[in-house]
Amino acid sequence: MEARHLPTIQDITSASKTIFGVACVTPLVEAPALSRRFGRQVFLKLECFQPTGAFKIRGAYNKISKVMESHVVAASSGNHGIAVAYSSHLLGKKCTIVVPENAVEEKIRRMEDFGAEIVKFGKYSDERGTKAKKLAKEYGAALVHPYDDPDIIAGQGTCGLEIVSQLKEFDSVIFPVGGGGLISGSSIAIKTKKPDVKVFGAEPEGAPKLHEALRAGHPITLESPKSIADGLIPNSVSELTFEAVKKHVDESFTVSDNHILAAVKLLLKDAHVLAEPSGAASLAVLLSTHDLSALGERVVIVVSGGNISLSLLSQLLSNR
Amino acid sequence: MEARHLPTIQDITSASKTIFGVACVTPLVEAPALSRRFGRQVFLKLECFQPTGAFKIRGAYNKISKVMESHVVAASSGNHGIAVAYSSHLLGKKCTIVVPENAVEEKIRRMEDFGAEIVKFGKYSDERGTKAKKLAKEYGAALVHPYDDPDIIAGQGTCGLEIVSQLKEFDSVIFPVGGGGLISGSSIAIKTKKPDVKVFGAEPEGAPKLHEALRAGHPITLESPKSIADGLIPNSVSELTFEAVKKHVDESFTVSDNHILAAVKLLLKDAHVLAEPSGAASLAVLLSTHDLSALGERVVIVVSGGNISLSLLSQLLSNR
Repeated sequence: MEARHLPTIQDITSASKTIFGVACVTPLVEAPALSRRFGRQVFLKLECFQPTGAFKIRGAYNKISKVMESHVVAASSGNHGIAVAYSSHLLGKKCTIVVPENAVEEKIRRMEDFGAEIVKFGKYSDERGTKAKKLAKEYGAALVHPYDDPDIIAGQGTCGLEIVSQLKEFDSVIFPVGGGGLISGSSIAIKTKKPDVKVFGAEPEGAPKLHEALRAGHPITLESPKSIADGLIPNSVSELTFEAVKKHVDESFTVSDNHILAAVKLLLKDAHVLAEPSGAASLAVLLSTHDLSALGERVVIVVSGGNISLSLLSQLLSNR
Repeated sequence: MEARHLPTIQDITSASKTIFGVACVTPLVEAPALSRRFGRQVFLKLECFQPTGAFKIRGAYNKISKVMESHVVAASSGNHGIAVAYSSHLLGKKCTIVVPENAVEEKIRRMEDFGAEIVKFGKYSDERGTKAKKLAKEYGAALVHPYDDPDIIAGQGTCGLEIVSQLKEFDSVIFPVGGGGLISGSSIAIKTKKPDVKVFGAEPEGAPKLHEALRAGHPITLESPKSIADGLIPNSVSELTFEAVKKHVDESFTVSDNHILAAVKLLLKDAHVLAEPSGAASLAVLLSTHDLSALGERVVIVVSGGNISLSLLSQLLSNR
């Protein structure tokens, strides 16, 4: 078993070479209408432009390119599963994704498009994880965890590395937080290159795993996390991601589902970008916080994904 | 009166310096899901990310920065008016926009936000144009035409100039066509730098002014142009824009309103980008043409604007 230590800036730089040509260097653009609205420069890092529609491809491809086994297994109802399926397809590996019984057909179809075998099992994340572990053992396959893995964290860290190379001066960055893979890897890159930049998390009020962990000083397990932002509801961060976060992340803000949905609409209207609710949680911070001074004059909003179904979007727009 | 000659590549390069820091160098990104769908590399040039939501800021700012008068007048129901208002605001000039009596409130509000005086007049483009001319004379103001002007054309040409600097190798570019300002200026830049690249137009079946002009060999005037793409329905291109188009544009394809709306949805779903119908006409070509071989292996789709109201978008999504 490989060593379980956090990736260094060298690991992240190396990951960015590994994923070159597979994951995109996504655009980092100012959104002038948002800048006017919030009285400070607002930049968007558009991870929704990744080939799989979300940042997850960074970590998944970095991990799977290092795996010796010819078969990989993952548990996921969404973006991680799509990224693992796509990476396995590119790397010529067999791929099995364990999805919940009630998974969205659209997402399953995308995994199948990349040749993944789909196993429907249970309803909860824990059940899926256990099933995936079992299957991996049975198949002699590698299990690809969505965030609790140094190679996944290093891959997601390339997002932060890109930000510091794309923008000379900025004061803060806000990342949506699920299990903490994106913010932990990226905060290592950002604080190494620009120690003065503030790094913030954004998570749903109904799933404040990082906010609570930062208060407690250690990962805590939530009873029943719940949010419209279905990518941000693991019941805890991991020991590994928390180790980086504790050191490098300044604060994790919680936002209501209403503010998350308002942020999805605002990104459409003011920036012409389609984000999924999980991907817009970062912008929701600007809608729900009265005092934005902690963000400084130049804030980078990471729009981590865009895989919202058009039927959900349609509902959202008609409930105005 | 200034000379009425087409801009040269030097004029376009000079325009790109003039507009630097005002108009954005918009991202040019591959949309992998569209590439997979259409069996060739599909790149998007995202003019919907401009500060005013459409490419028009390029020409308007270039023109108005050269104007001696302290007051400018323009006729427009949409993106040109917003761009003229924004540019005037930045350059400290007074601004009057003549809009149709039935103009969309949302767009009027955006012009007013930038300090423009709004004059509602008539319903048709011709009436507005005449009224604007009259007002300009009365005010001693400069009239800013949306496309029939060398400085406007040079400004819009910076879009083409950026494309050739952003992408090393590509086979074709498709531009939405209204009065022809964008495609004429950009085709000068593209064919000067890359003579082998094909330049195509896309216009609504209900407003095929360029398609017909290319057949006739001179600009023609349409009786009653009509389309959901409200930015693409002038009744003719101008002598000036046609002069460039005749020389540099390979073909102008016509697309149905249904294909335009399908392209708006596809950009949302596959690329997570919000385009207005006029801005998506270029992608509609790929939906309506059976034989895509003329486009080559690498096609750039110019998404010229994103100012669609969320209520129209909502209607569009619920009519699935």
